[in-house]
Amino acid sequence: MTLSQYFPIFTWGRAYTRTALSNDLMAALIVTIMLIPQSLAYALLAGLPPEAGLYASIVPIMLYAVFGTSRALAVGPVAVVSLMTAAALSNIVEQGTMGYAVAALSLAGLSGVILLAMGLFRLGFVANFLSHPVIAGFITASGIIIAASQLKHILGIDAQGHNLLELVISIFENLSTTNWITALIGILATAFLFWVRRGLKPLLTTLGLGATLTGVMVKAGPVLVVVATTLAVWLFGLAESGVKIVGEVPQSLPPLTLPSFSPDLLGQLLLPAFLISVIGFVESISVAQTLAAKKRQRIDPDQELIGLGAANIGASLTGGFPVTGGFSRSVVNFDAGAETPAAGAFTAVGLAIAALALTPLIYFLPKATLAATIIVAVLSLVDFSILKRSWAYSKADFAAVLATILITLGMGVEAGVSAGVGLSILLHLYKSSKPHIAEVGQVPGTEHFRNILRHDVLTHPEIVTLRVDESLYFANARFLEEKIQNRVAADKTVRHVILQCSAINEIDFSALESLEAINERLDEMNVKLHLSEVKGPVMDRLQRAHFLSDLTGQVFLSQYEAVESLMKSGG
Amino acid sequence: MTLSQYFPIFTWGRAYTRTALSNDLMAALIVTIMLIPQSLAYALLAGLPPEAGLYASIVPIMLYAVFGTSRALAVGPVAVVSLMTAAALSNIVEQGTMGYAVAALSLAGLSGVILLAMGLFRLGFVANFLSHPVIAGFITASGIIIAASQLKHILGIDAQGHNLLELVISIFENLSTTNWITALIGILATAFLFWVRRGLKPLLTTLGLGATLTGVMVKAGPVLVVVATTLAVWLFGLAESGVKIVGEVPQSLPPLTLPSFSPDLLGQLLLPAFLISVIGFVESISVAQTLAAKKRQRIDPDQELIGLGAANIGASLTGGFPVTGGFSRSVVNFDAGAETPAAGAFTAVGLAIAALALTPLIYFLPKATLAATIIVAVLSLVDFSILKRSWAYSKADFAAVLATILITLGMGVEAGVSAGVGLSILLHLYKSSKPHIAEVGQVPGTEHFRNILRHDVLTHPEIVTLRVDESLYFANARFLEEKIQNRVAADKTVRHVILQCSAINEIDFSALESLEAINERLDEMNVKLHLSEVKGPVMDRLQRAHFLSDLTGQVFLSQYEAVESLMKSGG
Repeated sequence: MTLSQYFPIFTWGRAYTRTALSNDLMAALIVTIMLIPQSLAYALLAGLPPEAGLYASIVPIMLYAVFGTSRALAVGPVAVVSLMTAAALSNIVEQGTMGYAVAALSLAGLSGVILLAMGLFRLGFVANFLSHPVIAGFITASGIIIAASQLKHILGIDAQGHNLLELVISIFENLSTTNWITALIGILATAFLFWVRRGLKPLLTTLGLGATLTGVMVKAGPVLVVVATTLAVWLFGLAESGVKIVGEVPQSLPPLTLPSFSPDLLGQLLLPAFLISVIGFVESISVAQTLAAKKRQRIDPDQELIGLGAANIGASLTGGFPVTGGFSRSVVNFDAGAETPAAGAFTAVGLAIAALALTPLIYFLPKATLAATIIVAVLSLVDFSILKRSWAYSKADFAAVLATILITLGMGVEAGVSAGVGLSILLHLYKSSKPHIAEVGQVPGTEHFRNILRHDVLTHPEIVTLRVDESLYFANARFLEEKIQNRVAADKTVRHVILQCSAINEIDFSALESLEAINERLDEMNVKLHLSEVKGPVMDRLQRAHFLSDLTGQVFLSQYEAVESLMKSGG
Repeated sequence: MTLSQYFPIFTWGRAYTRTALSNDLMAALIVTIMLIPQSLAYALLAGLPPEAGLYASIVPIMLYAVFGTSRALAVGPVAVVSLMTAAALSNIVEQGTMGYAVAALSLAGLSGVILLAMGLFRLGFVANFLSHPVIAGFITASGIIIAASQLKHILGIDAQGHNLLELVISIFENLSTTNWITALIGILATAFLFWVRRGLKPLLTTLGLGATLTGVMVKAGPVLVVVATTLAVWLFGLAESGVKIVGEVPQSLPPLTLPSFSPDLLGQLLLPAFLISVIGFVESISVAQTLAAKKRQRIDPDQELIGLGAANIGASLTGGFPVTGGFSRSVVNFDAGAETPAAGAFTAVGLAIAALALTPLIYFLPKATLAATIIVAVLSLVDFSILKRSWAYSKADFAAVLATILITLGMGVEAGVSAGVGLSILLHLYKSSKPHIAEVGQVPGTEHFRNILRHDVLTHPEIVTLRVDESLYFANARFLEEKIQNRVAADKTVRHVILQCSAINEIDFSALESLEAINERLDEMNVKLHLSEVKGPVMDRLQRAHFLSDLTGQVFLSQYEAVESLMKSGG
């Protein structure tokens, strides 16, 4: 029972069939072809040597297969997490040094431990504080930053910057040093990859190819570009003309590595590791749930944290960097027919073979080509429609998106996501601190009570009924005190105040004390306080306090009953 | 209209009567007698020369009379704010220096500007984030710290400490240097004042004295002690035996002073000033509302902020320190019959006369006497029953109280109140991130739907109805996704999911996207999603989005209608 809870592999492994095996093998082949250039590219984005991208895809994917609950999730380096890795590390160590690679291992290890702890202590809800608008804004802004950061590789120039503006200025300053052959390769590769996405797919479909084959050919586009540009560089000796190439990549299985445990380093990496964990988890879980729903499968978020935690710890011990479940590769895996996490394990084998045997072949691969694959991949993440949609729906959500985008672009990924989360929490608290409070009256001929401002209702001058459309808690308790005080102090005919509690899901201790104060103050004015339609759990809790015995009025089951009874008793 | 809104004095001033005048004068006399020793004592607590306490009570009280909306609030130095002033300043400048007094002016000025800005921009709701348990815990802990900090004056020793533990250790270390005459005066004064509170009042009442006269005599207790101990020190020349006395106090009206505008200093004072403002405001507004309710008067919180802001700016320009509306003095003012803020203005005149004429008389007043009045006053604030009451009502509120008390005692007032606010917000968010979601069924023979776990209800295997008892927002949106996914994925007979939205007061953009995802995922499983009992404002907002047109099911007015209609259409 417990064993299969923590090792989902025992559940699906027992029922593994020959059909599942052949489906999984097919999916693994397709994903492997897609992942080779992607892994190299994301390593470049993270500021690491290309082989780190391959290593980060091998052991992590196997560990996820053991611990993860999603049947189709493909774990490995992804764009946003690679960007965050680069942002976190380049503040601490210089890119290209040995220390940088070791710090990447520490970051992955720390992130793994955080994810694992969140899973074991069932703290997955922490991720819920990243609201959708904040994530959407963050991913859009990250996509822009990533694309901008790759422009230097496309142009063959040097450029630096801690935020978008600095980066763009630096690119313009160095524009005169553009290596035109590199730029030609980069621009052609980018244009071709865009065409594969936008033009090739419709073309193949028109030509009558099946959806699966079309999909495979489109996904193979990056491989084709890699092969073509590598050959070009090799045949024409373009490396001598200044085209930057990947160069020597060790032919090896993932090495055993040990992250640094320096308390100083770990202290500096703690916040970035936490943000990487949470953002990686959110990206991963939403893909996993979308794919699981298609087959009525269940995802256990806490077990997912354990799976991703194990994957990241694996990455830190085998020369990798932070990983998570990627959107596009998981969708490809699913579409290609993957039935179980075994497909992931087979992908890992495919990538291990690539790391062992194929690395000499990418010696002449130009970095511009990798940059092109990154740019094309991330620009699909950029989606400003969230601004328009959130504006139409809610100004508070719009403010959170806008702040996240602007601060991410202007001050970097960590500041952006923190500001977004902080702002959305503040706006939520602000909204609930001024709840909608309606004075209600009886709809004639019914037992319904509605807002006196919106409906033609019956009221009695000596009875005021207020309906609070929010749980009562510290942030709005005093607001209610003021509302009632203002309503009653001004109108000396009032003898009863009824609080209709149908929308009150909780009353916290502050609100309880406010209700006690309201009760006492109304008593001073010779006005009785009554409650109606109090929910069961709220009533249970009120019974543990003195409030009900101090209440000057009564608690009525329904609002109708309250008014009837008060009118009868001589209102 | 606007003028009398910002200057409430025009409202009550116009209708000022001879009766009101005589009542106000009487109240002013009683409050003045009470305030003289109190002002001196709180200046000592704040680490300032005694005259600062008098100055802080004169101009501020007059400005509040012009701008404030409470008829009975008495503004001046209060215990908790004086403690916070000492805590804020002693981190920055050495006590007893000129810089310390100037920094106190800056703190009052900054606090005044913050209050004024909060009032003008209607930001009074910020104070609502101080929950009742946090305030109660904070005041109790502050009372203990204040009492401990005065022990050194009672014993005539030196003692220092940034938190309670350090202070207590320091007192024990210096216990051998106790000045026994000082200790005798201090202990006798404390004991007498306790007896006045606990023993004299019942005695006088038994003797048949009226409540008002009894009240006045009890309040005059500190004056009696001041006179007696001052005479004793003078007659027996105790100052030569090492009894510390107040000494020379300038005979002067409040001087015109200018706070320091050093950006460095203001930067360091910003957070303390903000906390002092918010806590002072909360203390003041709750007293004001309690007293106003007794006479059906209205308090405008935003105008109160303006009144308190003006009072603090006044304090900073006339040799004072941060002030607010005090609990005990306001109650005395009210009980003594004060009818308008003019009573406060008369009190100010009384104190001005004291500052001009009476200061030579307090030359021999021992500091131990002032310490005794402080100890007796603050120990009435210490109330650990909040721990028991909050434990019984809600563990989350209990946690907030306990954390506030422990951190205030262990790490100081600013850390304590910040931690309390932070923790109560986190606990609130945590609770609402895991809302109560009940699966409901029809109570036989009625149109009511109740929790299937609590009631014997009718259900249909192909229809699942979930009632969410919380507004849907980013922190709980994914929780709902998981709940629904888990319920439906496991049960393949389900064909309809109905969300009963009667307790949903808001759906934010994140929750909207979650509902869209739920709708889509259910569609993949061939399950339709329906809504019932959606509130008007929620529906208004949903209509601005695509969700309603994408919804696979329908929106029903009532839950009963939903089930009836789905069963009829071939369930």
